[in-house]
Amino acid sequence: MPVPPVVAAYRGEPLERVPVWFMRQAGRSLPEYRALRRGRSFAEVVRTPELAAEVTLQPVRRLGVDAAILFSDIVTPVQAVLEGIHIRPDRGPVVDQPVRTKDDLARLRPLDPATDLPYVLETVRLVRQALPPEVALIGFAGAPFTVASYLVEGGKSSDYRQTKALMHAEPDVWDDLLDRLAGMALATLAAQVEAGAQAVQLFDSWVGTLAEDDYRRFVLPASRRVLEGLADLDVPRVHFGVGAGHLLEAMAEAGADVVGVDWRIPLDQARERLGPGVAVQGNLDPTTLFAPPEVLDDRVRRMLAANGGRPGYVANLGWGVLPDTDPDALRRVVDLVHGSSP
Amino acid sequence: MPVPPVVAAYRGEPLERVPVWFMRQAGRSLPEYRALRRGRSFAEVVRTPELAAEVTLQPVRRLGVDAAILFSDIVTPVQAVLEGIHIRPDRGPVVDQPVRTKDDLARLRPLDPATDLPYVLETVRLVRQALPPEVALIGFAGAPFTVASYLVEGGKSSDYRQTKALMHAEPDVWDDLLDRLAGMALATLAAQVEAGAQAVQLFDSWVGTLAEDDYRRFVLPASRRVLEGLADLDVPRVHFGVGAGHLLEAMAEAGADVVGVDWRIPLDQARERLGPGVAVQGNLDPTTLFAPPEVLDDRVRRMLAANGGRPGYVANLGWGVLPDTDPDALRRVVDLVHGSSP
Repeated sequence: MPVPPVVAAYRGEPLERVPVWFMRQAGRSLPEYRALRRGRSFAEVVRTPELAAEVTLQPVRRLGVDAAILFSDIVTPVQAVLEGIHIRPDRGPVVDQPVRTKDDLARLRPLDPATDLPYVLETVRLVRQALPPEVALIGFAGAPFTVASYLVEGGKSSDYRQTKALMHAEPDVWDDLLDRLAGMALATLAAQVEAGAQAVQLFDSWVGTLAEDDYRRFVLPASRRVLEGLADLDVPRVHFGVGAGHLLEAMAEAGADVVGVDWRIPLDQARERLGPGVAVQGNLDPTTLFAPPEVLDDRVRRMLAANGGRPGYVANLGWGVLPDTDPDALRRVVDLVHGSSP
Repeated sequence: MPVPPVVAAYRGEPLERVPVWFMRQAGRSLPEYRALRRGRSFAEVVRTPELAAEVTLQPVRRLGVDAAILFSDIVTPVQAVLEGIHIRPDRGPVVDQPVRTKDDLARLRPLDPATDLPYVLETVRLVRQALPPEVALIGFAGAPFTVASYLVEGGKSSDYRQTKALMHAEPDVWDDLLDRLAGMALATLAAQVEAGAQAVQLFDSWVGTLAEDDYRRFVLPASRRVLEGLADLDVPRVHFGVGAGHLLEAMAEAGADVVGVDWRIPLDQARERLGPGVAVQGNLDPTTLFAPPEVLDDRVRRMLAANGGRPGYVANLGWGVLPDTDPDALRRVVDLVHGSSP
């Protein structure tokens, strides 16, 4: 089977054209997704393989992207072992009983993907069967820090004060928590690869709130356990956080083959800092998709120029597609990236 | 009159000990503030000079900080010229009719501080009279970008999509908006200096959402108009944004004598990047104040060590005091900073 261009780019191989996909390409920006969601909860879609597969495939059909990413949520694995985690519209994950003490840790038993997440693995199989061979399927998990922040805070936080308080006051409990979450992320990603995912992305969405020394002490070992645990599976490992430009090198050191970059760090700077051995993904500001076409085109061209034709590059946004985004603007970016020389 | 240590540090003069104050030191973390607010709105306190002065002075008495900062809000000046801006508890400023078109700009007439903000100037005078000479009074205004983001979005945003859409789609309207807001910020800061403020801080709280090239094109000229407009008044000009580590040099170029740094950028890196001609303020993570005393002490010592005794340094947080902070932890930081060699 030929290697899909996204996977080849993740491996640093030179290509005729730059591959492209979008974080959160499946979801609220697509009318066919909104139609499918009518009368159904987010959880119902995630837990029904035919529906989750359909949603995963929708952007491939409409946008012509080079990769599909499993439709799921950052907390899907931990939801399977812990009661009382809900995805609330416009609020994201909400946790009824936050995890903050040594006793709370006992609630986090190990994850067995085959029995805990059968719907996720079936979704992966269905998507892989349906995808054309040149379109890659990317597996998906939340990184230990970001999942921990939801569990400790009880939901999305603006300051992560409870998370950092636990880290500072009870480093042993913190380390144990992150180790358990690393085990879950590793288990789900390995199972997704076994089911057909050809690359994985570990989302540490909120880790940019940490200084580099805290990242290295309190997060990197757990993230490394996930990423290095996948080494033998021979799939590219993408690692990403938003507003984490100050952590790029450290996140690569955690074992990433590819580092996702947001728009705050120009691609040329990111590539110089990371060196030729690390591929890069990004970094269009998602709000650019609301700009007039000529401005959008200019931004896409500047992004490609900043990469400067270096191999090991996949075009993407610097964060997820915003809900009200016009799918035609996304399609425009795909066509422009595909039509440009690398 | 002797130069207060904070002002001397802002000017790069060597000092016997490091001066310290805290962003948002006046407010919800102090029981005496909560007592004063009982039955009174935020707006009532800001607009009653005796109350605003009392609130400004409270942290000086309790914490022993080296500076007072005017108790006010980022939108206070624009509130005086535009109807329908409210400060909502836990949501911050909310704008009934967002400013998004050329026609909307007409609603933003120039600010005349003497008639529009007499209570602010009277507060400055009262505080200056009450403060001991060694404690500096710092004036305060929101920077054009951050105030514009509230006006365009209608409140605090997580993605600034409307703000950036305006910037991209109608750069002339955007430039005009920022120019008007620059005029207001300059007018209020100049009037505060005339009334007794000995330094000023221009808060561009949310500007870290922009890449550097957008900052330089769409924001820097307006911020420069404010900061350079104050040059003849011979007061140090502090400029700060959170999560703006990628903009440090550009924010200094806007005309800052002092750049505020958050905890994501170590002070030694910030000082190397900015050079000896720019003073630095920061950068303790406000969540550190929730840590056990020995962890807090260690963080304060590491912060001071990262500055490495360089003159031109004022200790502070990397963002505002969080509402539930224990004032004793703040006092502990002040005492530790004052007791350490610079």
